[in-house]
Amino acid sequence: MNSAPMFRKVALIGFGLIGGSIARGAKSLGLAGEIVTTARSAETRARVRELGIVDRVVESNAEAADGADLVILCIPVGACGDVAKEIAPHLKHGAIVSDVGSVKGAVVKAMAPYLPEDVHFVPAHPVAGTENSGPDSGFAELFINRWCILTPPEGTNAEATEKLAAFWRALGANVEIMTPEHHDLVLAVTSHLPHLIAYTIVSTAEELEGVTQSEVLKFSAGGFRDFTRIAASDPTMWRDVFLTNKDAVLEMLGEFQEDLSKLTRAIRRGDGDALFDHFTRTRAIRRGIVQIGQDEAAPDFGRRHKQLGKAPE
Amino acid sequence: MNSAPMFRKVALIGFGLIGGSIARGAKSLGLAGEIVTTARSAETRARVRELGIVDRVVESNAEAADGADLVILCIPVGACGDVAKEIAPHLKHGAIVSDVGSVKGAVVKAMAPYLPEDVHFVPAHPVAGTENSGPDSGFAELFINRWCILTPPEGTNAEATEKLAAFWRALGANVEIMTPEHHDLVLAVTSHLPHLIAYTIVSTAEELEGVTQSEVLKFSAGGFRDFTRIAASDPTMWRDVFLTNKDAVLEMLGEFQEDLSKLTRAIRRGDGDALFDHFTRTRAIRRGIVQIGQDEAAPDFGRRHKQLGKAPE
Repeated sequence: MNSAPMFRKVALIGFGLIGGSIARGAKSLGLAGEIVTTARSAETRARVRELGIVDRVVESNAEAADGADLVILCIPVGACGDVAKEIAPHLKHGAIVSDVGSVKGAVVKAMAPYLPEDVHFVPAHPVAGTENSGPDSGFAELFINRWCILTPPEGTNAEATEKLAAFWRALGANVEIMTPEHHDLVLAVTSHLPHLIAYTIVSTAEELEGVTQSEVLKFSAGGFRDFTRIAASDPTMWRDVFLTNKDAVLEMLGEFQEDLSKLTRAIRRGDGDALFDHFTRTRAIRRGIVQIGQDEAAPDFGRRHKQLGKAPE
Repeated sequence: MNSAPMFRKVALIGFGLIGGSIARGAKSLGLAGEIVTTARSAETRARVRELGIVDRVVESNAEAADGADLVILCIPVGACGDVAKEIAPHLKHGAIVSDVGSVKGAVVKAMAPYLPEDVHFVPAHPVAGTENSGPDSGFAELFINRWCILTPPEGTNAEATEKLAAFWRALGANVEIMTPEHHDLVLAVTSHLPHLIAYTIVSTAEELEGVTQSEVLKFSAGGFRDFTRIAASDPTMWRDVFLTNKDAVLEMLGEFQEDLSKLTRAIRRGDGDALFDHFTRTRAIRRGIVQIGQDEAAPDFGRRHKQLGKAPE
């Protein structure tokens, strides 16, 4: 890189899928003069040192945040308040403090009270991920053409918000700004409810009488396997999401239940027209998602198929 | 091919995703001396002629079945009874008659009464598919390492069953034999319930107040997009599945509702331990499915990511 990096020192607190992907992307693009990271467990810190992606792995959150121009908490939302409290005394004047949590209202409420007046708090949520977690799971391309939502509290310095937006755009993301409340409602339907439903159906399939687990696995290509991916996501992260975005999730669950009742009734009554109409409308949504590049156009998510062998004797 | 084809004449009635994939696979492997097909609409028949995959496209089901050694109905389950009635007088002595329907009890009940004593009825269900439908959607590799379930009625000629099994194995599938009733219960959970849930959640997301459709599409990478694939499946086929496998689907829905109630209660009460335990157990199922090769090991179903561009100025 010939140009100066966007930030002199970037501190990443937590090195899971998201923290690790930010580190890899920022490193490969030269977005930071120095990337310093830490993680709660000694095991993760050791692994991050081995990986050799970041410039320094330190032992404490305070040490990581110390003197950083950008501090990003890449940890479950339930841990954000405590970490904000811990790093607050060490934050540099004018630093930007952000996070990557999937819930924003609760994170703002938990972190804001601890943060000094002279830092810029710009909460963020990159809507991207895979079912994997841990220090090895990240990759630099994770955020490309995904959306990163910023929810700066009223009165946040516009320049700081724009600087963080530019960082996310450099990582390949599109940036949108909204209130924490609206974020939590939108994500309740596009992310939290789907995860809850997936977690439910996977356990339903696990505990049935009359159908063995081996049968569930073997015949999962009938549709079930699509649900198992997000039901394999990080349990701590998702526990915290449901604990902290309870109201919006319960509201969406109510809507879902009403719709499920309607379809159940149509099945019970043998109302083929109602079913057909419903199943026709839902096709359009998939087309829309593919059109705006939020999913693969290739069938089956682009899953690969082996080549057909030769004819048997 | 040096060896003789498995069947002299194969008739495929219907040329959608499944029929078209059988045709492509059987053609490329030389499994049939002649492949004859037909389809209900003149438009589809014209398209199949253009595609040039099969040897002959004929105008009627009777003409297709006439003299065939293997006749496979590749049509929605609701249409199988009528077609069986139509082709019955034209079936060759000793012919194997099969189908590819996702429900087996109802198909057996609808077709068996019409079929003459001197043909072998071996119902089948290849558990494979994509969200696409129509004559262009099939491909020869669709059945590789997927399961094809045969449900021969009691007393079916074992040689005929084995001959059909060999045909499916040649197309790349693993074959399992079970009763129609057990098939319908297993598929209710691995396929029918997931489709119903996916259809439901996609329509829930479509009709919300306070969240726009554009937001649902943009932020769908948070999990929602995984559901939209199977909710884009063929509406006629799925209407028929729910009409004909009503009892097993309603039973699975009851199980699902109970499990959803448990999780909802845990969220309402803020029971983090219950949520965490649940979310930990469901990870194992995904691992099992990947281990037996029923899904991609690559994260995100192996969806491709673009390369990260250069740093902005």
